[in-house]
Amino acid sequence: MTDKEFFKVTSLERVLDLIRTFPCVNEEVLPLDQCVGRILFQDTVSKIDLPEFNRATMDGYAVRAQSTFGASESLPALLKIVGEVEMGEVPTVSVQPGEAVRIATGGMLPDGADSVVMIEHAHALDEHTLEVFKSVAPLQHVIEVGEDFGREEQVLAKGSRIRPQEMGVLAALGQTHVTVYRQPTVATISSGDEIVPIAQNPSLSELRDVNAYTLAGLIRLSGGIPLYLGIARDNFDELHGLCKNALDQADMVLISGGSSVGSRDFTLEVIEALPDAEILVHGVSISPGKPTILAASKQKSIWGLPGQVTSAMIVFHVMVRPLLEKISGLSEDRLLAEREVSAVLSRNLASVQGREDYVRVKLVHRENQIYADPILGKSGLIHTMVKADGLVRIDINSEGLDKGTHVRVIAF
Amino acid sequence: MTDKEFFKVTSLERVLDLIRTFPCVNEEVLPLDQCVGRILFQDTVSKIDLPEFNRATMDGYAVRAQSTFGASESLPALLKIVGEVEMGEVPTVSVQPGEAVRIATGGMLPDGADSVVMIEHAHALDEHTLEVFKSVAPLQHVIEVGEDFGREEQVLAKGSRIRPQEMGVLAALGQTHVTVYRQPTVATISSGDEIVPIAQNPSLSELRDVNAYTLAGLIRLSGGIPLYLGIARDNFDELHGLCKNALDQADMVLISGGSSVGSRDFTLEVIEALPDAEILVHGVSISPGKPTILAASKQKSIWGLPGQVTSAMIVFHVMVRPLLEKISGLSEDRLLAEREVSAVLSRNLASVQGREDYVRVKLVHRENQIYADPILGKSGLIHTMVKADGLVRIDINSEGLDKGTHVRVIAF
Repeated sequence: MTDKEFFKVTSLERVLDLIRTFPCVNEEVLPLDQCVGRILFQDTVSKIDLPEFNRATMDGYAVRAQSTFGASESLPALLKIVGEVEMGEVPTVSVQPGEAVRIATGGMLPDGADSVVMIEHAHALDEHTLEVFKSVAPLQHVIEVGEDFGREEQVLAKGSRIRPQEMGVLAALGQTHVTVYRQPTVATISSGDEIVPIAQNPSLSELRDVNAYTLAGLIRLSGGIPLYLGIARDNFDELHGLCKNALDQADMVLISGGSSVGSRDFTLEVIEALPDAEILVHGVSISPGKPTILAASKQKSIWGLPGQVTSAMIVFHVMVRPLLEKISGLSEDRLLAEREVSAVLSRNLASVQGREDYVRVKLVHRENQIYADPILGKSGLIHTMVKADGLVRIDINSEGLDKGTHVRVIAF
Repeated sequence: MTDKEFFKVTSLERVLDLIRTFPCVNEEVLPLDQCVGRILFQDTVSKIDLPEFNRATMDGYAVRAQSTFGASESLPALLKIVGEVEMGEVPTVSVQPGEAVRIATGGMLPDGADSVVMIEHAHALDEHTLEVFKSVAPLQHVIEVGEDFGREEQVLAKGSRIRPQEMGVLAALGQTHVTVYRQPTVATISSGDEIVPIAQNPSLSELRDVNAYTLAGLIRLSGGIPLYLGIARDNFDELHGLCKNALDQADMVLISGGSSVGSRDFTLEVIEALPDAEILVHGVSISPGKPTILAASKQKSIWGLPGQVTSAMIVFHVMVRPLLEKISGLSEDRLLAEREVSAVLSRNLASVQGREDYVRVKLVHRENQIYADPILGKSGLIHTMVKADGLVRIDINSEGLDKGTHVRVIAF
């Protein structure tokens, strides 16, 4: 252990810049019903007008708006009912001035009609005679041809996440299959002589391999596919072998443990010995998470994460997840914004200048505001993460944050 | 079509009360690495102390705190280095007053030591002599036995969602398998003569079955397993057959289309004819979504959703998702809170008293605040959902909300 060996730390801003240099994974074609949460590989351009016909948006009567002008409860307009629109069929009737045609929500507007009188604002005196109590404007309760999306219009952008509504758009366009970015595979390796598989009863001084599970969960929730490669003891060849294996099979590699200063720090040595390896970051000016390593080998990222479980999780949220989402194809404007929520800090938070602090908070809903309650307790305790719903950042140039400050929270 | 037939509408509050009456699904046992996002079926009680030994949380030297009292940069304490703690091994040395033992993060504290001096605050003059520049307090940079979780302590509660940190706790306790609630299966049926499968080119006046996909995506994101049963034409026997099939295979049934007032309203009739059927709700005082039906058959919920895509999605977010999460076992305090974020309304919003309005908004991050920008456009257009990130509720007794109001947003 070399005493007083300080890291030449990198700013978080610089790390997030480096993240942009890693290439995205390639694409695959999936059935639409399996696409939720995935990222679009290309822009979607509509080949049709949506809707393809003028549709009623209310149950009622298709009319010419003009026929209703001036109508009121005391002086209803009297219209002649000349037919009905059958759902799924092209109307055979047309609407002349003074006429009305029964129509249900989603029905195709007959020729001559430009608006729909809601059923609540009309009363049929008999089969052929309608009283209308309220005037409608042209196009009222109607969606016009192409009003949702026009032909040749770009409807969805490459790099968007496919939510249920984007699935709906693709379904409306008849896209049964969609080209999306592949989900990146992320290999994880736990390192350290003290780490044992969780099924094993650790002897005193040994620890179960908790990072294998927390990281798998984080990778899964960030859209990646976790690939656990096992535990490397503090031995160059063992860790080197697993890393080479990882690079062959995965798009990104996470090594937990072994990244703190010390005699057991094989991680850096091992990474340096990988093909075309370049150490990009060794130490980041954040707390917790300072001893983080970021390296590249064959355009793939390799992270050395703290062995300590809660620190590794926070480094994941702050840096690894943005990189994972970037190579997943997610567009830059969504990269950091997607999981941030705003809250009001419920007490003062102190900090040390010269590093970014990430403080665990619980989000508490009170009336129309969400408050961020800082979680007390030693940062190494996993129960502080169980109690927490997110992280508040304290800026590198700040000495702390005052109670009542509006803060942005990385929610988890 | 019976004119002027108004719904006897139910309040949303009452609907949410009814949701509580449906029973949860049963349980299954899963390997821990497949549990992320699932709901715990039982409380987790620790059988061990966590950690099981006093651990260093920093790289440095294990000492008796007393030996460092009064130490400073100008007047360092001089300690004798008497050994080193090997990771994963029980220390063979002990620490007496005036002594120090090298230790790395996660290492087991030797007998006699009560604290750790950080490597940054010490300097080894030679192999045996250490200068310490800063005093430590007893227990500083140490996690004590049982400090994270004590033996017999309840560490996780039934009904909690298993996030990566909960996976970590379970891993630390050696739980290779976990009992979780089964994921509910949710059957979907699209109804209407005008609806065609999305692979088909709709003739003019027909519509592609968009709800099949939007609902599948919503079910998936809410923790359910979607089971699409196809399109029922407006025919009692066809819809009845699919509904019976759905009740046999699923924990919840969603029928989209056919729930508006009108001659084609078979949905209610069909549901009433199901075994032990009870119509609980026909019409809800929200907009959009008023014509929603909620019924029960054999303790399973059956929903009649609007056929209109965006209305069906909003009803899902506001009512179906809470019920789905309830029967998934999610605890009540998480039920509605989990997906709500707070934001500041960026413009005035008008509303009609006597109903709850749900307005689509885009969440825009500006500095440390998130603003909710209302999406303009007709509510029936799906592109308004693509532009939106959530829904703002306008209370039933309110005439609207002013610009600058803090609002809670159902994020999606």
